[in-house]
Amino acid sequence: MKYSISKDYINDLEIRKNKLLKKIQSSDVDACLLTINVNLFYMVGSIYTGYYYLTKDGQEFNFVKRSSDNNLSNTINIRKPEQIADELINRSIDLPKKLLLETDSIAYNECNRIIASLSNPEILNASTLMRNIRSIKTEFEISQVKECAKQHSAVYALITSLYKEGMSDTELQIEIEKKMRLHGSLGIFRSYGENMDIYMGSLLVGENAEVPSPFDFALGGQGVNPSLPIGSSNLKMKKGQTIMVDMAGNYRPWMTDMTRVFSIGKTSDLAYKAHQVSIDIHNEIINITRPGTSCAELYNLAMDIVIKNKLEEYFMGTKQQAKFIGHGVGLEINEPPVLTPRSKELLESNIIFALEPKFVIPHIGAVGIENTYLVNEKGIEKLTIFEENIIQL
Amino acid sequence: MKYSISKDYINDLEIRKNKLLKKIQSSDVDACLLTINVNLFYMVGSIYTGYYYLTKDGQEFNFVKRSSDNNLSNTINIRKPEQIADELINRSIDLPKKLLLETDSIAYNECNRIIASLSNPEILNASTLMRNIRSIKTEFEISQVKECAKQHSAVYALITSLYKEGMSDTELQIEIEKKMRLHGSLGIFRSYGENMDIYMGSLLVGENAEVPSPFDFALGGQGVNPSLPIGSSNLKMKKGQTIMVDMAGNYRPWMTDMTRVFSIGKTSDLAYKAHQVSIDIHNEIINITRPGTSCAELYNLAMDIVIKNKLEEYFMGTKQQAKFIGHGVGLEINEPPVLTPRSKELLESNIIFALEPKFVIPHIGAVGIENTYLVNEKGIEKLTIFEENIIQL
Repeated sequence: MKYSISKDYINDLEIRKNKLLKKIQSSDVDACLLTINVNLFYMVGSIYTGYYYLTKDGQEFNFVKRSSDNNLSNTINIRKPEQIADELINRSIDLPKKLLLETDSIAYNECNRIIASLSNPEILNASTLMRNIRSIKTEFEISQVKECAKQHSAVYALITSLYKEGMSDTELQIEIEKKMRLHGSLGIFRSYGENMDIYMGSLLVGENAEVPSPFDFALGGQGVNPSLPIGSSNLKMKKGQTIMVDMAGNYRPWMTDMTRVFSIGKTSDLAYKAHQVSIDIHNEIINITRPGTSCAELYNLAMDIVIKNKLEEYFMGTKQQAKFIGHGVGLEINEPPVLTPRSKELLESNIIFALEPKFVIPHIGAVGIENTYLVNEKGIEKLTIFEENIIQL
Repeated sequence: MKYSISKDYINDLEIRKNKLLKKIQSSDVDACLLTINVNLFYMVGSIYTGYYYLTKDGQEFNFVKRSSDNNLSNTINIRKPEQIADELINRSIDLPKKLLLETDSIAYNECNRIIASLSNPEILNASTLMRNIRSIKTEFEISQVKECAKQHSAVYALITSLYKEGMSDTELQIEIEKKMRLHGSLGIFRSYGENMDIYMGSLLVGENAEVPSPFDFALGGQGVNPSLPIGSSNLKMKKGQTIMVDMAGNYRPWMTDMTRVFSIGKTSDLAYKAHQVSIDIHNEIINITRPGTSCAELYNLAMDIVIKNKLEEYFMGTKQQAKFIGHGVGLEINEPPVLTPRSKELLESNIIFALEPKFVIPHIGAVGIENTYLVNEKGIEKLTIFEENIIQL
């Protein structure tokens, strides 16, 4: 895990810096200032309290309030953002007239304070820009995602042995969480968006799969407390129900997303049928996807197969139906692109995305699988390798 | 856990609403709009995607984009914030000229969008206001914190049996995490501030206790990965070291904070001495604190005892020393007031705060205890009851 000083890693940071630099230059801005944890980690390989600053000339500064990274270079210690302007002027660097800032994430007051301290430059959105840059993975990032996928599969392979008759959904989830942690799960599970709370993933059984959630994840669940309305809800699991396991793939900072389904004894014909349709959708999408394929096309292809099988009323929920079937995955679990019917985005080489066509079968539970795929030059490569049929407990 | 429909709870929500209403009226604003999860939960007892709106006349609306709470009243379904103005006008409610908004938390773009959609009212800071309101607990909240404290203690009582020779710090932490979850830990661990990531608490052993963290918690630790630089770091634990356990008290949405120390065999005289000084500080503070006591006075009293014992160089860290010895606790782990040397805040009845005078002993680990206290009419009541001496493993 202590990869921060390896040559490959330092080289990779240089590649990432150049990706941002190119965007700065093509956006015709003077500089980019980043302060959100996930973007700091992306740019410098660690998290600190402070501000990362990159000028259009490629000059890089870490304005640090607090850091524990001894390898951090170009460091300038500050106590408050107002010192950034002075430090730039002391180095004969012009204050930016046009500046990229994470305006979708930095709080209003903090953002205004930064803007005022830099003499009110014109502001462009660095949040969207960084999410787009991060959606195309480097070789190092791809290798990390592949390592993560291996651990993700290794933990799912233990689930059959963790199940005991009479367990509640939450009890089974807790057993899985422990195995996750022992396999290197970092615990923290980063998602984008202020209202997207989640803890270590979701396990959905029986009726609970139908319960809507206020959050914009694919499926819902009531949760064990109204302060976290998602996922398992302390219900005893019963014969014939399905258990949908969509636990976090957070074994590396770069994550994977994978869902598999277990059943307690045999489940219903409708559940088996819908599950097979999900697998069919995956296989069709594996067949046709390549760089240049549109995200909308994948959604519409999936929906055609769902309609042909008359399963619309179960697709992506019943009482509340999600309007996407997949999403980019990386340092955050919900990255671009999103596979929606009206997306204008095209897949590109080195995008990593999760595909999750799922169905909710009333009283039974949720079915369907989710895999994480890497877009390569010829097509897509499945990274999350594990039994795809419903696994009977 | 399904308290959301109990009479007591509905009554408590009314009390909380009236606290906010009084502040709205005394701040001379027209309304308050809230959208941050923790404040939505405080006001209505559930989390939804949308906007809570309270006028100075006491009219309450939930402008809901997505919710799973069937008990939510005064609900108006919207797709985007721009609809709020129309819905208010349709009900003959004037748009606010002065509005409270969570400007320390809502992202810049989202905040500007809300402000523009309401025809640019003057904005006041609801973030600070809500944190101050939440710092004085209701009877229901106090009962929740007390329930939480019981579970917190029950889990700490198991730690001796979880330890096995040759374990790493992270392995012991994982065993504790599982017991936490089985005792009802909600998993999610809410902290305030964009750069305050943490997962389920912190366990610090040996040299790792000295490692600074970029986050503003009392102590640091390297963490297992640079993407989460805090806490345990996969180091084998050795004889003579101390294990400081500061795991989350998140058994209810209203939390407790508690730290206890274990040692592997006997530890050093300096460690025992500093630990006793921490206990002495607690006892002194229990003796003198009552409503009206200033937070600065408590800090300075603690520091006097530290200096008298010549332990300054170890107090609240070595390489990096925190400048506070306690903080409010509630729906977030870091609430006001903060016990700092220059705080102007006075303690009031029904404030719940954690006191954590800690020492870091080089090569040995961290020592000192943390308890959560309730300020009552006469003094303070200790809520986290468990053995306070160093527990030898």
